[in-house]
Amino acid sequence: MKFSPLVDELIQAFKVLPGVGPKSAQRMAFQLLERQRAGGMKLGRALDAAMTQVDHCRDCRTFTEEELCSICASPRRGEARQLCVVESPADVLAIEASGHYSGKYFVLMGHLSPLDGIGPDDLGLDILAKRLASGDVSELILATNPTVEGEATAHYIAELAKQHELKVSRIAHGVPVGGELEYVDGTTLALSFSGRQQV
Amino acid sequence: MKFSPLVDELIQAFKVLPGVGPKSAQRMAFQLLERQRAGGMKLGRALDAAMTQVDHCRDCRTFTEEELCSICASPRRGEARQLCVVESPADVLAIEASGHYSGKYFVLMGHLSPLDGIGPDDLGLDILAKRLASGDVSELILATNPTVEGEATAHYIAELAKQHELKVSRIAHGVPVGGELEYVDGTTLALSFSGRQQV
Ligand SMILES: [Zn+2]
Ligand SMILES: [Zn+2]
Repeated sequence: MKFSPLVDELIQAFKVLPGVGPKSAQRMAFQLLERQRAGGMKLGRALDAAMTQVDHCRDCRTFTEEELCSICASPRRGEARQLCVVESPADVLAIEASGHYSGKYFVLMGHLSPLDGIGPDDLGLDILAKRLASGDVSELILATNPTVEGEATAHYIAELAKQHELKVSRIAHGVPVGGELEYVDGTTLALSFSGRQQV
Repeated sequence: MKFSPLVDELIQAFKVLPGVGPKSAQRMAFQLLERQRAGGMKLGRALDAAMTQVDHCRDCRTFTEEELCSICASPRRGEARQLCVVESPADVLAIEASGHYSGKYFVLMGHLSPLDGIGPDDLGLDILAKRLASGDVSELILATNPTVEGEATAHYIAELAKQHELKVSRIAHGVPVGGELEYVDGTTLALSFSGRQQV
């Protein structure tokens, strides 16, 4: 024991958070105790509610406390036959914000990472396979990140989709709009050349 | 609303923590939901317990859920007439770990900072004044940090103590043991010269 039991427990508990070591855990505990009791109480209640009630959307796997997330439950998307595969709920948000996609999503909640023990089933690919088999999907858009793991995951899913009659596409990689060529890395530049389109 | 209501509330609630912006708040929420439900529940319970039950020690102001902290309640310290003033509970820990002090403490929980609206009463200096007036203290050791604010706070308390008959001392500043002179800043080096002792 270092401080009083309840203070020690709080400091220990903060260390579950990503990027929080002993020093920041202590700083967090002291700041809440000294200046943010109400905010600390609110965080406690939010944690309790979210940890016990939030689960995965039945259809797309994103986080939600309902059976279906708001997108999957939306009648406007009911007839959509495009399915976009992303790594995280934040990616769904980014694509929705761009306003150019009105299909459905499938959220992997990660990417294949054999070294961390994350295989196909951890990403719900068994659920995805069933959705593809149902015949409701006409196009599968692979929007995993343009990283080694994201590409490997996209490749794995493309193989999986081959046994079904559907169009499979990968989002385009290239120079970002507003970006300057001289600051773009070589791999991206190479991809922007190989993916060039006639004008 | 961005994600589901409970997930949004959790992300918002995390932003009360020092150094946590929207991106890290999201990362914390997702990591707990995806991989650390038990740890998240534990953090929620620890927050609830600490925010509602932890208060300040009646004598020294450090954080504790009891009326007196373990040091103030210790019979071994009952007769001690030295009182060491520090800025934070972590400083008490550091001094205790050094094993060379067996007196009592007074924890300011900060330092004077007029720009942040932190004045004498916020540091419990009214309580400290009463303790000094009680006649139980024979030596007051000022162990605030060697920063501008820490020095100003020490100076303020030294003035406050003048009206009482007691010894007031400031901990020594100088080259840390094991430190190399060439890497020590000029101010510290100057202090180590002016505070030199005959051998
Ligand atoms: Zn959904
Ligand atoms: Zn105490």
